[in-house]
Parts: sequence; C-alpha cells; structure tokens
Amino acid sequence: MARYTNMQFLQFLLMDVHPVKDLFSYERFAHLDEEQAWMMIESAKLLADQEMAPYFKEMDEHPAKYDGNGNVITHPCLKKIIPAAAAQGWIGASASFEHGGMQIPEMIFGTAHHIFQAANNGVEGYLGLSAGAAGLITSFGTKEQIDSYVPKIFSGEWQGTMALTEPQAGSSLSDITTNAKPFENGTYKINGQKIFISGGQHEACSNFIHLTLARIEGAPAGTKGISLFIVPKFRIGSDGNLMYNDVYCAGDFQKMGQRGYATTHLSFGDNNDCIGYLVGEPHKGLTYMFQMMNGARISVGLCAASVAMAAYQASLQYCLERPQGRLASEKDPTKPPTLIINHADVQRMLFTQKAIAEGSISLGIECNRLYDLTHAATGDEKHAYWLLLEILTPIVKTYPSEQGSRSAALAIQTLGGYGFTTDFPVQQHYRDLKIMSLYEGTTGIQSLDLLGRKVTMEKGKALQLLSTVIMESVQQAMLVESLASSAKLVQDEIKGVQEVMNQLAGYAAAGDIEKYLADATVFLEMMSYIVIGWQWLKLALAAAKKLEQVGLSQSNIAFYQGKIHTLQFYCKYELPHTAACKATLLNKLELTRTNNFELFD
Amino acid sequence: MARYTNMQFLQFLLMDVHPVKDLFSYERFAHLDEEQAWMMIESAKLLADQEMAPYFKEMDEHPAKYDGNGNVITHPCLKKIIPAAAAQGWIGASASFEHGGMQIPEMIFGTAHHIFQAANNGVEGYLGLSAGAAGLITSFGTKEQIDSYVPKIFSGEWQGTMALTEPQAGSSLSDITTNAKPFENGTYKINGQKIFISGGQHEACSNFIHLTLARIEGAPAGTKGISLFIVPKFRIGSDGNLMYNDVYCAGDFQKMGQRGYATTHLSFGDNNDCIGYLVGEPHKGLTYMFQMMNGARISVGLCAASVAMAAYQASLQYCLERPQGRLASEKDPTKPPTLIINHADVQRMLFTQKAIAEGSISLGIECNRLYDLTHAATGDEKHAYWLLLEILTPIVKTYPSEQGSRSAALAIQTLGGYGFTTDFPVQQHYRDLKIMSLYEGTTGIQSLDLLGRKVTMEKGKALQLLSTVIMESVQQAMLVESLASSAKLVQDEIKGVQEVMNQLAGYAAAGDIEKYLADATVFLEMMSYIVIGWQWLKLALAAAKKLEQVGLSQSNIAFYQGKIHTLQFYCKYELPHTAACKATLLNKLELTRTNNFELFD
Repeated sequence: MARYTNMQFLQFLLMDVHPVKDLFSYERFAHLDEEQAWMMIESAKLLADQEMAPYFKEMDEHPAKYDGNGNVITHPCLKKIIPAAAAQGWIGASASFEHGGMQIPEMIFGTAHHIFQAANNGVEGYLGLSAGAAGLITSFGTKEQIDSYVPKIFSGEWQGTMALTEPQAGSSLSDITTNAKPFENGTYKINGQKIFISGGQHEACSNFIHLTLARIEGAPAGTKGISLFIVPKFRIGSDGNLMYNDVYCAGDFQKMGQRGYATTHLSFGDNNDCIGYLVGEPHKGLTYMFQMMNGARISVGLCAASVAMAAYQASLQYCLERPQGRLASEKDPTKPPTLIINHADVQRMLFTQKAIAEGSISLGIECNRLYDLTHAATGDEKHAYWLLLEILTPIVKTYPSEQGSRSAALAIQTLGGYGFTTDFPVQQHYRDLKIMSLYEGTTGIQSLDLLGRKVTMEKGKALQLLSTVIMESVQQAMLVESLASSAKLVQDEIKGVQEVMNQLAGYAAAGDIEKYLADATVFLEMMSYIVIGWQWLKLALAAAKKLEQVGLSQSNIAFYQGKIHTLQFYCKYELPHTAACKATLLNKLELTRTNNFELFD
Repeated sequence: MARYTNMQFLQFLLMDVHPVKDLFSYERFAHLDEEQAWMMIESAKLLADQEMAPYFKEMDEHPAKYDGNGNVITHPCLKKIIPAAAAQGWIGASASFEHGGMQIPEMIFGTAHHIFQAANNGVEGYLGLSAGAAGLITSFGTKEQIDSYVPKIFSGEWQGTMALTEPQAGSSLSDITTNAKPFENGTYKINGQKIFISGGQHEACSNFIHLTLARIEGAPAGTKGISLFIVPKFRIGSDGNLMYNDVYCAGDFQKMGQRGYATTHLSFGDNNDCIGYLVGEPHKGLTYMFQMMNGARISVGLCAASVAMAAYQASLQYCLERPQGRLASEKDPTKPPTLIINHADVQRMLFTQKAIAEGSISLGIECNRLYDLTHAATGDEKHAYWLLLEILTPIVKTYPSEQGSRSAALAIQTLGGYGFTTDFPVQQHYRDLKIMSLYEGTTGIQSLDLLGRKVTMEKGKALQLLSTVIMESVQQAMLVESLASSAKLVQDEIKGVQEVMNQLAGYAAAGDIEKYLADATVFLEMMSYIVIGWQWLKLALAAAKKLEQVGLSQSNIAFYQGKIHTLQFYCKYELPHTAACKATLLNKLELTRTNNFELFD
C-alpha cells in the first residue's frame, strides 16, 4: 500500500503541536484520554487502508453517472464504505451524547477525515456532508426533527446534503428563488431548482435529507429573507411509512476531478408535492447555514491539504526510488545514475510540497481545535477562541486550496512525463484539488469575508488577537537558536500588515468600500503566507522541544529536525512572497474597476 | 464559434510590436510582403475554425487509444485535418524553396501554429512534430534522405516524430541505450525501446519517420556517443517499395490531458530487422537534435501561451455574459444582479490571464523572429540574434508553461463551479496545459540550461545583451508619460539580477558548481518576470505610438489603451514577485542538498 499520509506527523500534531489533551480538562471532553483518541485515529487509518484507498483510482475511472431516470450510478464500494465508516462513528462521533454522538473533539474527527481525504477524497465527501447536515439539525432543529432524521444519517442509511446553489444565483445567495409556501399545518410546499448538489443522489443510501435554502412567500428580498428547510427525498408519512416527496434528481455534472463524487441537479416539486420542514425560525436560514458552512470551509481546506499530502507522499516515494541523471559535479558518464532525490531542484520541489501540505494540515487541526474550544470553553475565553476561528476560517479554506494545487503540480513535476499519465495518482490529485478553491465560497468570496467582515469585526479585535498569538510564537522561537532567524523573518512580515491596513483603512474612511475591497484576494494571500509561517514556527518549536529529549532514535531525530529544516525552507522560499503582496497592496494605481470592457481585448 | 484567440492582437504583434516587414529586407524573405503574410494567417484561422476547434472537446472525450495490436485508434477528424493543414503549407511552409518549402518566416509559421494550438492543441502537435522532424532532415541529412522523406512529410502522408526518451533514462539523455550496429552498406541495425513518443503511431498517416537517438556500438559513454538516425516504420526497399521495418508500437500512455494526441511506446527491432539511416556524422546526434529541440522549446512555450489564451477568451466571454451578485456599494437586493466582470476581483483574474497569455505570446513571436533573423542575417548581427535567442529559449519554454497553468486555473475560477465541469472548455485547457512544463526538457532542465549554460556562455555576453535590449525598451518607455512609472519598476528589478549574479558567481568561483545551480529554477523565475515585463513594455510602447494616430475608432483606442493598462497591471500585480525570488536567491541558507532523506518525513 502506497503511503498517503504520515501517521507520525499526525501524532506529533495531536500530542505535541496542538495538544489534544488540553481539551480533556473541559467537561465536554472529560470522558476521553490521549490513548483512546489515538486508537480512534488508528482505526480510521485501517478503514482508509482497507476500504477507501483501494478504490481511489477506480472511482475516477468509473465516474458517478446519471442514468437518465432520476438515479446516479455510483461505484459499488460506496455501499460498503458508508456503513462501515458510520459504524466506526465517522459521521456522528463528534455530536453530543444526547444526540447519539460520542462527543469526541472535532480535532480527532477532523484528523480521521483527513486520513479519509488523503486516501480517497471523493468518498470522504459523502461522510462529511452527512455529518454537517446532521449537525445543522441537532443545532437548530426540534427534538422531533432530530429524532426523525439524525439517527438514520449517523448510521449511514440516509445521506444528508446541503442544497444552496441555484443556476441563476451561484455565489450570490441573496438571489435564490426556491419557493416555500406555508401550509396551515406548519409545513411548506417547496418549489425550485438546485444545482451542484454533492451527494444529492446515489445508490448507497435509501433516503436523502436535503438541508435546503428557500424563500418563504412574501419574505424580504436578499439574504434576510432566506429560510432553512429539511426537504427529504422520501418524507415520513403520518403512518410512519416513507413516501416519495417529489424531489427528483434531474441530472448530474461531469467534472474534471472528484469524478466518483456525485454532483447533482435537484428539482423540487415538479408535481407540486414536495414538502419541506422549517428549521428554526423563518428568515434565519442563512445564519443557520453558516454554522454548517464554517465547518465545511475548514473541512474543504483540510481536504485540499490532505490531497496535497497524498500527492506529496506519492512524489516522495518516487523520488526515493527513481535513479536518473548525475550531479553537476559528476563528470563521468559511466558512473551509475543517482536517485533523483539527490538533485537540489527535486529537493526544492519536495520541501515546497512538504511546507504547503504539512503547514496546511497543521492549520486545519488548529482551526478544529479552536472550534472545540469555542464549544468547550465559556465567557471571555470562548469569545477569544471564536474571534480567532472567525478570522482564520477564510484562510484555512483558501491557502490549502490555492497552494495545494501548486503543490500537486510539483508532485507531477517530480515524476516527469510519468506524472501526467494515469499510471500514477498525482495527476488525479491535481485534478481533484481544483474544485477546492470553488467549494463553499470561492477564493474571491473568502477574501471579501476576510477583509470585509473578519478584519473589521469588533473594531479589528480578531486581527489584533491573531497578531498577538503569532507574536507569541515568534517570541518563543526567538529564544531557540535554530529558529531565531526564521522567527525574525516572520516578524518582519507582520509589520507589513499594519502598513497595508493603514493604507486600506484610508480608502474605507473615505467611504470607498469597493476600493477598500478591490485587492482583498491579494490581502488574503499576504495574510496566508504569514499564518502558515506561524504554523511552521509552532511545528518547529514543538520539534525543538522534542529534540531536547535524550535517547531519541536516529529516525526520530531526523523527523524533528525535518520540521526545523522545513521552517527554514518555508522562510527562504515561500515567505518572501508576502512582500510581493505588500508591494501590490501599497501600489495606489487602481486597475480593476474599469467600465470599459474593451480594455480586455 | 467561441473565440479562442484575438486576431487584432496577432495583427498588432506582427505589424507593430515585432514588425515582420523588417524581415523582408533580407534576401531569404524578400519574396514576401505584409499583405501576403497576413493572408496566410487568415487562411490558418479559417482552417482552425472549420476543422480544428470543432473537435477540441470530442478528441478529449474519445482519447487516442492503443488497440492491443500495434495501432493507436485516433479521432477520425485527423484524417481530414492533417492533409488539409499540409496542403495549406502548415507543415513545410517555413522550409527553403530548395527543400520544397515556401521560405516563410518562422514568425508567420509560428503565428499560424499559435492559432491551431489555441483552437485544438492536440491536433497541432501532429503538425508541429512533422515540421520539426523534416527540418532536422533538411538541415543535416543527405540529398537522398531529403528526397526520400521530406516531401511525404510535408504532404502529411507520413508523420515525422522525435524519439529520444527511454524508460530508464528520462531527462538524462546521456543514459540512453538504444543500440545501432553498423552494416557494411553504411546502414545500421537498430534495437531498443522508446517511450513517450508523441504521434508515434496513429491512423491518419501511412508511415512514421522516427528521428531516433541511438548509440553506435563502441561509441563513447555519455552524450558524446549519441548518434541520430532516421528510422521509418516502413523502409524503402531496393525496389522502391515500402516494407515493414520492425518498428512496433507496443502500447500507449493514457493521460490527464492532450488526450487526443497519441503518446506511444515504440519497440525497435523485436525481430532484428529494424534498419536505421545515420543522419550526419556519428556521435553528433545530440547536437543535431538540439536544433529540433530548440525550435520545439519555443513551440511548446507558445503552445502553453496559446492554450492559456484560449482559456482567457472563454473566461472573458463568460464574464461578459454572466450576471451575478452586486457591488459592495449596492445595498438594495431588489436591484438586478450585475455582470460579474464588474467585480474588481473578476477583473483582477481577467487582467492576470491577459498579462500572462498575451505577454507569453509576444515573447514566443519575439523568439521566432530572432530565429528568423539568425537565418537571414550574417556576421556579428547574426551572432547577436543567436545569443539573444539562446538565453531566451529556456524562458520562452518555461514561463508560459508554469504561469499558463496558473492562468488557466484563474479561467476556471471565473466560471465558478461551472468551470470544473466538462460543459465548459476551461478545465480541458487546464488539464492540457500541465504537460507543457514537462515536454522538451522540464522546468528544472530549462533552469539548469539558463543558469549553467546560457548565462555563462561567451563570458556572460548573452545575459549582457539581453539586459541591453531590455534597457532600450525601458529607456524608450521612460519618455512616455503613461509608461514611465512601469518602466521604472522594470528597471529596478534588472538591478537585482546583477546583485544575484554577484552572489552566485562567488559560489562558482569557489568551485561549488552545485551550489551555484541549486536555485536555478528560482533564478529562471526571476528572469522570466523581468522578460515578460519587457514584452509588456514593448506592447505598450507600440500601443502608445498607435494612440498618436488621429481618427482611431473608440474600440481601437480601447484596444491600445488596454495594452498600457495591462502593462501597469503586470507591474503592480506580477512583477513584485521578482523581489521575492531575489530574496530567496540572496538567502545563503543551503537547504536543498541534504543527504538525510528522513528530513522529508
């Protein structure tokens, strides 16, 4: 079995870098210990090895496909994988005891899902979606709704989905038109079309519970008039039996990647017999959905990181086995070729991948940990965690999605022509990854969220808090000889953020909010370089501490030294691009707000 | 028909930016005028519209596929396209009259091929390969060889290929083992395996002329022992009839892109009856092959640029048609959505694509023009053109290949989720493009070529010459008000090159050639940003000159202003990354030459 993630790295993350055990002092997680947590991770790895990784390529070669008649034909392995993963708890384990969950930290749940994503990211999609949909019901649904749907979703019998996007609206949720007409009994008649609904129909589940955004008749325009409904494909009749609820899968989308993961077009109420059940209060649907969406954004970012990690592992394995060429200093062509990992440029490509993939996974775990802390802690402490999570969410979604593609491109590059062929998995990783910058809010949307909402919230408190925690790591690293020069480089870049914010604030103060936001994507890119630099400082700090122990094996020493080495690599090769972003942001020429579209010719 | 390139832009390039008419003062091209040249381009466009673009998607959906029995099944359209393109001269037109060509400039030939590449890059591959193989025979073959093979290749009846790569050697040509055993009559018995042979077998040609690298028995080891052979699939018997020459297509490669373009595995001499015909002198094969390869490198770079251009055109069209969302200043959700091109971030993505695609095409035409000048001019002038072309070749190959992928990713991004689906062409552009950084020497190989060979040749004369011509454009632009600030930014970055070279020269002077070369790829990236900035200065200078004319239409004014706008955009958003590369190159930490591979864990 080819390696697709690194268990030693995951253990290092959970035990040393972002210690999971800190969570166990909170009541919510007091029933757990480190050993139990790690055992769960190991079970997940076994499941991924046995049931997911073996189908990664096959599912790509036999894409999910609409049958012309309301169904989507999916790979048979799903019928085995979904129940097996559900039985181990990988749909419902992070839910509270009262909702049938195991109340495990999202950190552990997310780490298991990382393993699934690295093994077979399409398969993980079905599980993650169900978890998110169920979470929405447990958070905002009635007891009856929870009892009716959640157990079946947790068991993997029913698939949960999120049904937001409509053909005419895309990212602009304020323009959705799916209609909900109230009946006297409190239910609603639903009519509308939804596209790009992942897992909206397939053969491995017997019912589909669509968490659907719709507009109640007479609701205000815009996002303030959107409500959230449970719309099952088969509704529970008054006799307790299931009956068809007029939710028809009208087609699918064929895609360049994630081909085993069904992407559907759903039609609600073609025969005027589609009933939806309101979740929570009317017109608050978008607020509710954002809970799911925020979790989904961390999950998409982690997925991108996971796929990049899998590509890195495949790339590393190839570089350790393939002899080719000689070093420039070797002039004798009769000498045997060297392993390609001995070429400096190959090492550059490997360390770049490692820096991106591991840095991103670390940030994903960091965010899941903050999520856990916002649920476990109280008062000011809880609020601080929440602020940090808010400002990190657009970054954890975007950096791995954008840089992950670059990382997978380097994985292809290390394999040469072979990397472009279907004989090797790296080209599939590259194709699969491309969707991540579009899922759950595109890079542009995330950037507006960061600069427009998160930076400005509570008078800049989230950004201030983030700077504080980064500076804490910088200052700790300054005290460690092998990390000090890297810490200095990160510190320098943080100063640049203030400079940029001063200039941008001027635009906002002058009332030109569009100018303030025009380069939001470059701002997000700049912040991302710093945040990943911070993660590498944390990784290297934890490694430096480990290296103080006596009696470490040679291989463990190398593992920890590798973290320090990669921090240095990141600061030499990646971090300098922060300054390029800064130069762009400080350049006052306004070039992306023209009305003359012929300039594009 | 969706637009895949911009004819006004091509006309601007050929008539104003890199004036083709300058060539007509040389004897080699004296038979041509601008009007004729442009008519040929227009015929090429018509051919591409009618016969190539319509099959772009189909050829992807029905990939070339090995039939298990020596043949590769290809799309039937090839049987029509190859002869039609050949009849218009698009295989042989740049050859000399004496070899049956039309002696047209490579600039014109390359511009036509750009159109084909933008319309259907897989199809163009077959044509370009034949042109390159025939060029090798006309340059170094005997009259008999030329007469035997070239007319049939020019007519499209026979396919020319280049057969270099072997499974065990990859990029390391010095390790090829294909064997050539001399017969007394001066021919050779060939035995060996070649992989990744594009167009090595298909249904649209009746014979395949493989320009093959092999090692004559007893030849010296390494690149000095490689000879070049013509190895046809069917050889011309003593009676003039064709007979099977024991060249067997043993399989193909399925790929993530360019799926309509057959990639084959060839087996020479399985039955000990494969005859090869030596081209030129023994052991000089690699030198000869480099003529073809240098041309192929420009062509691959231009192809990457062309595919990026096609993706840009599809992206632009979508952005001009798709309403979605509202500007941040529009708070009223009942107002109709705006076209997405009105969003600043969408304009940023469009201008980035335009800057990359058009800048790259301009560099491709520049290099073809230099190629023409090296063939038309004499003495010192010829030598200067040759030096410039030598140093630009790794850059024209690499920048479009690497940044073109990023550009196509942005094309997908502008389409949102739709961009990931097979309903739109941008995902195919993205997949096709990925091979370009691997063809004809990977990015790593190009970088070693630039820093190891081209920068050092003739005591740095090529680099000096390049700086001089760039500074000429900078100084001209300094005199134009709308260009001066951009010119200043380019000038600043040029100074950085000297700083970097001083440091690198120190490593070389100390005898550490591997240290000198370790970050060659970053150096190439740095140089590329400057070279493309130079192209944008040239584009903007030509545009500024045009804008001095009276009576221009509004749309022409916008077209020329668009060039100046994009120069400014490039200098604000792309050029600053030069400084990031500089910071990396000046950082003295040595991080990519470790022997401890466990650091990668």
